[in-house]
Amino acid sequence: MAMKGVIASAVRTLASSGSSASSTTFTRHLHASAGSKKIVGVFYKANEYAELNPNFLGCEERALGIKDWLESQGHKYIVTDDKDGPDCELDKHIQDLHVLISTPFHPAYVTAERIKKAKNLQLLLTAGVGSDHIDLKAAAAAGLTVAEVTGSNVVSVAEDELMRILILVRNFVPGYTQIVNGEWKVAGIAHRAYDLEGKTVGTVGAGRIGKLLLQRLKPFNCHLLYHDRFKIDPELEQQIGAKFEEDLDAMLPKCDVIVINTPLTEKTRGLFDKERIAKCKKGVLIVNNARGAIMDTQAVVDASSSGHIAGYSGDVWNPQPAPKDHPWRYMPNHAMTPHISGTTIDAQLRYAAGVKDMLDRYFKGEDFPAQNYIVKDGKIASQYQ
Amino acid sequence: MAMKGVIASAVRTLASSGSSASSTTFTRHLHASAGSKKIVGVFYKANEYAELNPNFLGCEERALGIKDWLESQGHKYIVTDDKDGPDCELDKHIQDLHVLISTPFHPAYVTAERIKKAKNLQLLLTAGVGSDHIDLKAAAAAGLTVAEVTGSNVVSVAEDELMRILILVRNFVPGYTQIVNGEWKVAGIAHRAYDLEGKTVGTVGAGRIGKLLLQRLKPFNCHLLYHDRFKIDPELEQQIGAKFEEDLDAMLPKCDVIVINTPLTEKTRGLFDKERIAKCKKGVLIVNNARGAIMDTQAVVDASSSGHIAGYSGDVWNPQPAPKDHPWRYMPNHAMTPHISGTTIDAQLRYAAGVKDMLDRYFKGEDFPAQNYIVKDGKIASQYQ
Repeated sequence: MAMKGVIASAVRTLASSGSSASSTTFTRHLHASAGSKKIVGVFYKANEYAELNPNFLGCEERALGIKDWLESQGHKYIVTDDKDGPDCELDKHIQDLHVLISTPFHPAYVTAERIKKAKNLQLLLTAGVGSDHIDLKAAAAAGLTVAEVTGSNVVSVAEDELMRILILVRNFVPGYTQIVNGEWKVAGIAHRAYDLEGKTVGTVGAGRIGKLLLQRLKPFNCHLLYHDRFKIDPELEQQIGAKFEEDLDAMLPKCDVIVINTPLTEKTRGLFDKERIAKCKKGVLIVNNARGAIMDTQAVVDASSSGHIAGYSGDVWNPQPAPKDHPWRYMPNHAMTPHISGTTIDAQLRYAAGVKDMLDRYFKGEDFPAQNYIVKDGKIASQYQ
Repeated sequence: MAMKGVIASAVRTLASSGSSASSTTFTRHLHASAGSKKIVGVFYKANEYAELNPNFLGCEERALGIKDWLESQGHKYIVTDDKDGPDCELDKHIQDLHVLISTPFHPAYVTAERIKKAKNLQLLLTAGVGSDHIDLKAAAAAGLTVAEVTGSNVVSVAEDELMRILILVRNFVPGYTQIVNGEWKVAGIAHRAYDLEGKTVGTVGAGRIGKLLLQRLKPFNCHLLYHDRFKIDPELEQQIGAKFEEDLDAMLPKCDVIVINTPLTEKTRGLFDKERIAKCKKGVLIVNNARGAIMDTQAVVDASSSGHIAGYSGDVWNPQPAPKDHPWRYMPNHAMTPHISGTTIDAQLRYAAGVKDMLDRYFKGEDFPAQNYIVKDGKIASQYQ
């Protein structure tokens, strides 16, 4: 696929998200030191794939394409994919780093313990969207700033969700598997393949991604429902034709397809446990590109095995990378992938540009775009509360 | 997935396609005989899947759900999946059948030779859309009527095409394969995964299916192009925001994604040969749910192997069922399935109802809905010319 327009699009998106950043005060820590900084970036390793695409900025080898820029300003930039276990590379630098850049795709789990050890830490940046790998309470208590590149991959994730809805509704995976196995059994696919048209699709959460999904679902002539803390702006709601459901448990039994679009918080952790899954319609299809820990892992396996869940697709797991024996790899009727929906080449260009922009503002003592803050001045952003 | 609304939707769709059928004259043959008819239906066998879904009407075992109805009227109804080779079941009945019902998913190839042998044949019905498995010239010359259930599965196919576009753009298949193989290599997927947003998608053919696809692509903010014999109605064209391309070869190099939506005719057979594929952009993604024979089989393999085609997905093959050694099963970066896109449960209900409606009209000497005719009074419908 050609690259034309990809960079222009990234720059455009970034510019439009850059809104009104005024030079007001930062947290205490952000003003506590100046001069050369030690920045650590944790990214997935690309190995043989690193050289295949010049825009593949999100891997360890390219490290967002900001190494030369950082070093030219006298900063130190360490990059690694080694983030877990005793003696991992990340922990070797935790004591004296000023900035930690990480991603949701290969999350550096920033625990309270790590924060305690990180005496110089000022800024935690997520290259992408979703900062639940950070202990936000501990970060707030320590006076750290946490920020992500809000909006950088919401289109990427929404598109991917629509793909997964269709993959489950149309029963794509066994069709593909037949072909590569030399088989041809139309009935084995068709007996449980449906049109999306006319079905009821509900999203749990209608923030940036949920809204984009609903907009893309509009021409499919489905019944669209959404549950959220807030109602969508009435004009947009009418344009999309989605109906607000205040009570999650009242919405679930109506849905043929449920899509999870809520951040992982204390309230949403384990939200879909055995009891809640039982409230869904028998034969429900579930798409979850939000976070794996929103589901009770074993409850999903059991309901997929019994057929109560007729299909489950997503790219998020608990933990990540998913171990070889993670049961979601082997349950019936799944269409799982590694965590990829938000790390398209287009998204990488946008979140690389967004991280560079925030670092630049950090060095200059300027505020970030307001919507990027997850923890600021000891306060956690509302969507993570 | 639940069935609620599926039957109602099928009836609704059928009713809306039933338009103004007046009782004018049939072909010579349709009036040549009366009374008990011998009807043969060729469908794919469902075996163990037949009992899993009460609406699985399109399989041999359920035979469109019209057996009791036909027999109660004194007609004979033979059903089989055995359609090829010497001594196949179909050929045992070819000499005295009056009506042959077949499907594109498991096509009974109605050659000139078979038509010559079928002395009593009057009516060829396609349960679905696409009658290229019938030698239409020979059928027209023999005075036969050929009809299909126009519109019965166009939504099903358009939805499936959008799924395949996303599967290729997002590089889904290697992600799924990693998971079931116990792996986790985000980079192996991400280095060639893109957003659909901002890309150029062109459809070759913008008939019923092509238009539905363009409508569903609208919210994805792509550049949409279409090539067809006719321009879309200006109001609809503006609403969709698609641009007409009169010259196919001028459109192809502009497209990141090409979708084939043209019937198989003498003009489109082999349309995408080595030379035409070379005119496409390097790294093009191709979706073809139309007919396998529109592509030069080996040219697709060669271009997929060289990387000129970066991904190919579809459910149509030449011939069908695809033999075990069909090279499309084993070429790089494909996302192929057996022929399933038009045989969802929803589509089966619609085309079963449509076939029953036409048989009923046939027995009563009434015309079919005008748009269903493929061959009538010796003339072949314009889309097949």
